[in-house]
Amino acid sequence: MQNIFLSDCDKPKEECGVIGIYEKNNINTAVLAYYGLIALQHRGQESAGLAVKNDGIITCYKEMGLVSEVFDSQILNLLKGDSCIGHVRYSTTGESFVTNAQPLVVKYKNGTIALAHNGNLVNAHSVRREMEEQGMIFSTSIDSEIIAMLIAKNYRDDIADAIVKTMDVIKGAYALTIMTNDELIGVRDKHGLRPLVLGRLEKGYVLASETCALDTMGAEFIRDVKPGEIVIINEEGIRSVQTNAEEKSSCIFEYIYFARPDSVIDGISVYTSREIAGRILAKEQPAEADVVICVPDSGTPSAIGYAKESGIPYAIGLIKNKYIGRTFIQPSQEVRETGVTLKLNPLKEAIQGKRIVIVDDSIVRGTTSKKIVQALRDAGAKEVHVRVSSPVVTHPCYFGINTQRQGELVGASTLIERIKEKIGADSLGYLSYEGLLESVGSTGKGYCAACFNGNYPVVISEECDKHMFERR
Amino acid sequence: MQNIFLSDCDKPKEECGVIGIYEKNNINTAVLAYYGLIALQHRGQESAGLAVKNDGIITCYKEMGLVSEVFDSQILNLLKGDSCIGHVRYSTTGESFVTNAQPLVVKYKNGTIALAHNGNLVNAHSVRREMEEQGMIFSTSIDSEIIAMLIAKNYRDDIADAIVKTMDVIKGAYALTIMTNDELIGVRDKHGLRPLVLGRLEKGYVLASETCALDTMGAEFIRDVKPGEIVIINEEGIRSVQTNAEEKSSCIFEYIYFARPDSVIDGISVYTSREIAGRILAKEQPAEADVVICVPDSGTPSAIGYAKESGIPYAIGLIKNKYIGRTFIQPSQEVRETGVTLKLNPLKEAIQGKRIVIVDDSIVRGTTSKKIVQALRDAGAKEVHVRVSSPVVTHPCYFGINTQRQGELVGASTLIERIKEKIGADSLGYLSYEGLLESVGSTGKGYCAACFNGNYPVVISEECDKHMFERR
Amino acid sequence: MQNIFLSDCDKPKEECGVIGIYEKNNINTAVLAYYGLIALQHRGQESAGLAVKNDGIITCYKEMGLVSEVFDSQILNLLKGDSCIGHVRYSTTGESFVTNAQPLVVKYKNGTIALAHNGNLVNAHSVRREMEEQGMIFSTSIDSEIIAMLIAKNYRDDIADAIVKTMDVIKGAYALTIMTNDELIGVRDKHGLRPLVLGRLEKGYVLASETCALDTMGAEFIRDVKPGEIVIINEEGIRSVQTNAEEKSSCIFEYIYFARPDSVIDGISVYTSREIAGRILAKEQPAEADVVICVPDSGTPSAIGYAKESGIPYAIGLIKNKYIGRTFIQPSQEVRETGVTLKLNPLKEAIQGKRIVIVDDSIVRGTTSKKIVQALRDAGAKEVHVRVSSPVVTHPCYFGINTQRQGELVGASTLIERIKEKIGADSLGYLSYEGLLESVGSTGKGYCAACFNGNYPVVISEECDKHMFERR
Amino acid sequence: MQNIFLSDCDKPKEECGVIGIYEKNNINTAVLAYYGLIALQHRGQESAGLAVKNDGIITCYKEMGLVSEVFDSQILNLLKGDSCIGHVRYSTTGESFVTNAQPLVVKYKNGTIALAHNGNLVNAHSVRREMEEQGMIFSTSIDSEIIAMLIAKNYRDDIADAIVKTMDVIKGAYALTIMTNDELIGVRDKHGLRPLVLGRLEKGYVLASETCALDTMGAEFIRDVKPGEIVIINEEGIRSVQTNAEEKSSCIFEYIYFARPDSVIDGISVYTSREIAGRILAKEQPAEADVVICVPDSGTPSAIGYAKESGIPYAIGLIKNKYIGRTFIQPSQEVRETGVTLKLNPLKEAIQGKRIVIVDDSIVRGTTSKKIVQALRDAGAKEVHVRVSSPVVTHPCYFGINTQRQGELVGASTLIERIKEKIGADSLGYLSYEGLLESVGSTGKGYCAACFNGNYPVVISEECDKHMFERR
Repeated sequence: MQNIFLSDCDKPKEECGVIGIYEKNNINTAVLAYYGLIALQHRGQESAGLAVKNDGIITCYKEMGLVSEVFDSQILNLLKGDSCIGHVRYSTTGESFVTNAQPLVVKYKNGTIALAHNGNLVNAHSVRREMEEQGMIFSTSIDSEIIAMLIAKNYRDDIADAIVKTMDVIKGAYALTIMTNDELIGVRDKHGLRPLVLGRLEKGYVLASETCALDTMGAEFIRDVKPGEIVIINEEGIRSVQTNAEEKSSCIFEYIYFARPDSVIDGISVYTSREIAGRILAKEQPAEADVVICVPDSGTPSAIGYAKESGIPYAIGLIKNKYIGRTFIQPSQEVRETGVTLKLNPLKEAIQGKRIVIVDDSIVRGTTSKKIVQALRDAGAKEVHVRVSSPVVTHPCYFGINTQRQGELVGASTLIERIKEKIGADSLGYLSYEGLLESVGSTGKGYCAACFNGNYPVVISEECDKHMFERR
Repeated sequence: MQNIFLSDCDKPKEECGVIGIYEKNNINTAVLAYYGLIALQHRGQESAGLAVKNDGIITCYKEMGLVSEVFDSQILNLLKGDSCIGHVRYSTTGESFVTNAQPLVVKYKNGTIALAHNGNLVNAHSVRREMEEQGMIFSTSIDSEIIAMLIAKNYRDDIADAIVKTMDVIKGAYALTIMTNDELIGVRDKHGLRPLVLGRLEKGYVLASETCALDTMGAEFIRDVKPGEIVIINEEGIRSVQTNAEEKSSCIFEYIYFARPDSVIDGISVYTSREIAGRILAKEQPAEADVVICVPDSGTPSAIGYAKESGIPYAIGLIKNKYIGRTFIQPSQEVRETGVTLKLNPLKEAIQGKRIVIVDDSIVRGTTSKKIVQALRDAGAKEVHVRVSSPVVTHPCYFGINTQRQGELVGASTLIERIKEKIGADSLGYLSYEGLLESVGSTGKGYCAACFNGNYPVVISEECDKHMFERR
Repeated sequence: MQNIFLSDCDKPKEECGVIGIYEKNNINTAVLAYYGLIALQHRGQESAGLAVKNDGIITCYKEMGLVSEVFDSQILNLLKGDSCIGHVRYSTTGESFVTNAQPLVVKYKNGTIALAHNGNLVNAHSVRREMEEQGMIFSTSIDSEIIAMLIAKNYRDDIADAIVKTMDVIKGAYALTIMTNDELIGVRDKHGLRPLVLGRLEKGYVLASETCALDTMGAEFIRDVKPGEIVIINEEGIRSVQTNAEEKSSCIFEYIYFARPDSVIDGISVYTSREIAGRILAKEQPAEADVVICVPDSGTPSAIGYAKESGIPYAIGLIKNKYIGRTFIQPSQEVRETGVTLKLNPLKEAIQGKRIVIVDDSIVRGTTSKKIVQALRDAGAKEVHVRVSSPVVTHPCYFGINTQRQGELVGASTLIERIKEKIGADSLGYLSYEGLLESVGSTGKGYCAACFNGNYPVVISEECDKHMFERR
Repeated sequence: MQNIFLSDCDKPKEECGVIGIYEKNNINTAVLAYYGLIALQHRGQESAGLAVKNDGIITCYKEMGLVSEVFDSQILNLLKGDSCIGHVRYSTTGESFVTNAQPLVVKYKNGTIALAHNGNLVNAHSVRREMEEQGMIFSTSIDSEIIAMLIAKNYRDDIADAIVKTMDVIKGAYALTIMTNDELIGVRDKHGLRPLVLGRLEKGYVLASETCALDTMGAEFIRDVKPGEIVIINEEGIRSVQTNAEEKSSCIFEYIYFARPDSVIDGISVYTSREIAGRILAKEQPAEADVVICVPDSGTPSAIGYAKESGIPYAIGLIKNKYIGRTFIQPSQEVRETGVTLKLNPLKEAIQGKRIVIVDDSIVRGTTSKKIVQALRDAGAKEVHVRVSSPVVTHPCYFGINTQRQGELVGASTLIERIKEKIGADSLGYLSYEGLLESVGSTGKGYCAACFNGNYPVVISEECDKHMFERR
């Protein structure tokens, strides 16, 4: 019996997590942000950065690596300031060096702006072209710099005005934390595509991508930043500027996979939505089986929901090795063939001779599912029924999630029956689109589910890609 | 709402994991062992080491750190050999430097012996004294060196004889992998206190502390090494020498906490035993509650069992941050008080307004339990009923588990009612001793449960402590 | 007898070293540049960086640390390209993070420009203000970005035109290596303040701050880039654009201290100029003494010259510990007082009972000289005659050398007689200004010696400082 | 013109440096030892270690790497004690792992002994065999363990007795620092082959391989430890036990190459002996030349002496790059051929058109000399006269210097005329044996010069090699 080596590359990749802190007379906000970024680490493991403001002067430190690798006590000691913003970025290849890490810092006639961005613009190409035509000069290859530059460019007297003007130009997804020489600002795009929440500290405020970061920092949740809203925090307190928002369409995939289950986004608990999805899935896609297991860790809540609804007992069926980190030596092809597999080990006792329902949160390419099904059979499963707690992914995402291009999406062109055969399952069932909406308490409004239905809330008029500007 | 920072120090600590590989014509056994050690990493995170044999010459490399930190491709490249043994050691303070890491290597007139030891001798002090009186000289402060020295000392023509003689002298717990210039040897103490399994590779054999390592290396499980057995593998094949064993009393705590749930020890699935323990616990210690949750990760199977038996729904109630590693900066007292807590975050939605049963595998000092109960109350739990899937720990372990001394064991001197008050629970219930036996299919024989009942399988006649020899 | 711990902070600090390579069909120019940067490491130890061009796409990698720390084989493997530029920066405090490292990369409508800069602008403040007024936005706090931005801004069809226009605006010191999507360019400011040389490879060209880098890379020296010259290398070959240069005034301190002695700048050997300076010093400032020693390593050639001219024998009098690197733990005050001193140890046998002439290249603050004189006396020197192979430093440098502000220059306000007393020497003699000119074969023209005479080749109309833009 | 890449492998390698400190009430002796080891770093760069004693308990920390890499503030903080010994070891291949690093620690019935050894035993093989026959068991493959084991074995009541007995058995070279639970001990072998000095601290004593370490630690030199002497330091003070020494024959190569020039060994200044050697060389091997240069850094004093005696001016002719450390990427063959050379760059101005005398301290294999001669010719030297400030090395060393085996010694089998041709020099002259003796003030007694004359002070009856025990 062998266990399974799963690279994470079969899952969509969230682009980033952002954070912002403003707390009067607390010179150690960077320490708090460090813990907040660790709570958001699941949103990005490639690079981490913090910009702090002290006496109006902004200092930035960022590097490739996990939060706990990038920062040590010595560096945090150098990052004194009563305000800061932070950023974690997802893992890509080794070719994207530290230049593209965030926060970004731009300096212009009225001061300095630091910016951290989660999301993806869809008109970056044309906006940047236009800015370049006007003579603007960039120093990175990422779309986030466009936002920082536009804000600086639009600044006259009031930062809110500058941001409003910027938001009229840029299209796409952005949850931003921004720091000027005086203020901390949070911005959520007009559709609310990416999440951003506001919390309260004893003597200040916090902005973060998810509520789990508030919990970790001991901050009290106030509310979600609204689509199109600009929240400005300075020594006079907090104020809000509401731009003319579009219809809210927050990313439904946050609930399915990205967000931490202990987070609450726009009033909906991530954990609860996943458990409900599992329940609905059980109704829509029942199975004659002896046990329900999950693909750890993201499939767990849905599997529990499935088990509850179906009455089939829930069990642990795959054990995950938690010691496989970044320095781990990948097994060579040769070694892999002799059976060295590591990440997931089937728990034979829970599986042998049983009819298994295995619940996963999503299938993107299908290669991992195939390995898991095979491993379960090797461990003695009589039948393997794969249940997916989201619909078939048919369209690429342009808003900050690194899904494969359409050609790679197994669901884009393949009938479910064919996918079932490909992964070797006895049966395969997806959650319906309606079921997904129900799991997040929706009747069809309020969410972007373009990856499932192709209805993009913003017209996609150009090829867009976070790193498009690298190719020049 | 705050989440909880739990240092791991409230759990007993397993001393070690061991491994051994012999595969003819495979010069890369160290690579296989690397993956096997990663599968055993849960048994020890302080140091890792490998000794390889090539053409009869033994080379050893060991360092402080996780397996993936100690070894990189370059070092594995230097460790060529068709036979090897490996070791991981538990985490202690920074004061125990690399000298005490394993494998140990001793060189004597007939050659070289490398040895990896999981367990603890109980007569190390008197044996070592006697050896020293005879003029023997040691170079470490650990009991394992006594074993290696005795084997070398006893060696005449046959390694099995030397080991048999050694086993007549040493008392206590030991699962050993030993490598000589010609052979790989596995030894399990006369009571079988520590686990050791034998597996088959295509052209060789594997020894490991747990079956999960066999799975990871693609080895086929053959059988457990028997109490008092010596398994000798060389180019002529495999042979077994059975010494006059005592009554088997393998460590019952392996099932409760130490072993990975996907391992099978002496024919009993760790996962299954935990789930059954949870079921029995539900019968013995029922609770009126709305939901059953676990302390991740070790309490999970018992919580699932408890839920099944009681009919109370199982849910995820605490989310664990998996990015808190060794380089992580511990929060200062000041920061901790402002609420920075990290490791476990209560999932409010699953808890608020509910009567909670929380299942943990064991309580040693009780400090963590107190924090968890408080965090659940802060998250809105109406009632918190703590259930422990093992009996009250009343006695220290002398066989390789770093439990606190008797004075620190909350269960040694405190009534359960008092512990309940101390941790702030609405009710507290432990698994009975009989229930524990039942969970591992026993009627009272075959296990060492001295930490629960004080019945040590070996007379403890002296103060014993793995690092006793440091204090000279 | 104790030896002396000298921090390097008593010496002026050179800002940078630059390099550029263009070699058709050699995809490994970064490897060559790595060795070239190591040869220039004495010009800057704080950060190192390389930008490579492959198929017109520019990739940049830079980090804090020595060249050999920043780059390893794996990273160099990622930096493939037939053209590259590189940079090393001097060591400052830990507060200047990697954002300010070079090469800088800017992206504008016509492509990408990478730039490495040695030197300092003196009108950075006003130029940047003006650019900001025009809406330009910066992302670093260093003056070098102004140059890159201006070139991008001025670009129409021809890079040379853009650089010519830029050179009409910026004032001060700059030796630049620039890489566009098609070309490698070298630029030396109109006064030739900072050095830059051109060399030939088998199939390409090299630009470097000093000839020692050419030697290291096996490149043949062609000539110095001329003041005001722009050298453009592309697949059609090499061409030169000569802007209307000012009177040449290359930095005379390069000969005294900065440059490696095996380099030749503008036709004058650094080593030879130092030896001649020592000879002239011996004539101008003779001493009755038994032995001439040097402060290693920069004072060596002048001491040899002094010895030859005076007939007093040359000897080694201070031994330098070459194993004191960046990770070295600085002795605490307490330890320092008990005598732990490290960097220079007096060689008692060469000193005891003798009248010593000790030759240093320059005195900036005088604190180190005082320690050395004391150490020599402790080692038994009968008399200590300090001779300095350059004149009294009286004025700060604005062109890229981090000398102390005028208030800290011991020579700015103090009579030589007082300095002598301060450092405890029996006599103190400086090279005359005329002697310095003679040592570089000049009759008063061709060099900037403003630090000695206050005659700045460019009007210094504003406060200028490399990191001035940090303070906003 | 190209410069030269010299790996250090063409020089003999010193095995080690040792240190020992005893200072009442100074709990930070390890910090002092750290600085002392840095002063001895030239004697070994492979590994570094310290053992400290606190309240009678000995703790040891050692790792591969330079002193400044192995120890940081955190580790030194863990190494508290009023007594300590330390060790640096020479650089070998990556195959000798940390097990063989020193200090060694052995534990026996009467306590613990830590030992640091510089030198090499010549009867290690037979002594170890005998000890093994008696049942003694070793844990490393180095001869130093034999000494530690014998001392422990011989210990009854008095450590001095045990050491005396041990010294009667072992033959060869050893300078030892030893620490027991109560004492610090220094031992020098009966011939005084390896150096060891005694110094005074304010409240204690220091032992070190060289006086330069005393200077660095602010200790006052008392005297050399005598051949066959045992110096015992404890809370009652210092006492000496003199064993029946053999005729003193301290290693003459310490003066030629190993020791730091600022050290004084057995009353003779290393620097002075080198300068005198140069003077005598000038008389014995005159040359018609324009300039005398040295191979930096070890050839410098002799070159200065040669210049003085001959009247030919001394100059710097080769510049050494001091930034080439351990992490440096060695140039590939391909790159090397295109001319990347790094370590030594000829100073053309000092060489071109001149007749050069180049003074090196010794020639072992001759490969480096050949490269240097060629580089000097490439730089325009009219003639190159190589002068060596020691005689022809004809015999291997068995006392702790890693010279090549006899077959590799160019001088063992080749006539000087042939060597001259091999290295391409116009003339080649070695110092005579008599000249060498004169340089250290000897008339033929007191030194081991076996590498030059084959007269080993101890009978070499077996194959001996520091790592001989690895090959079992």
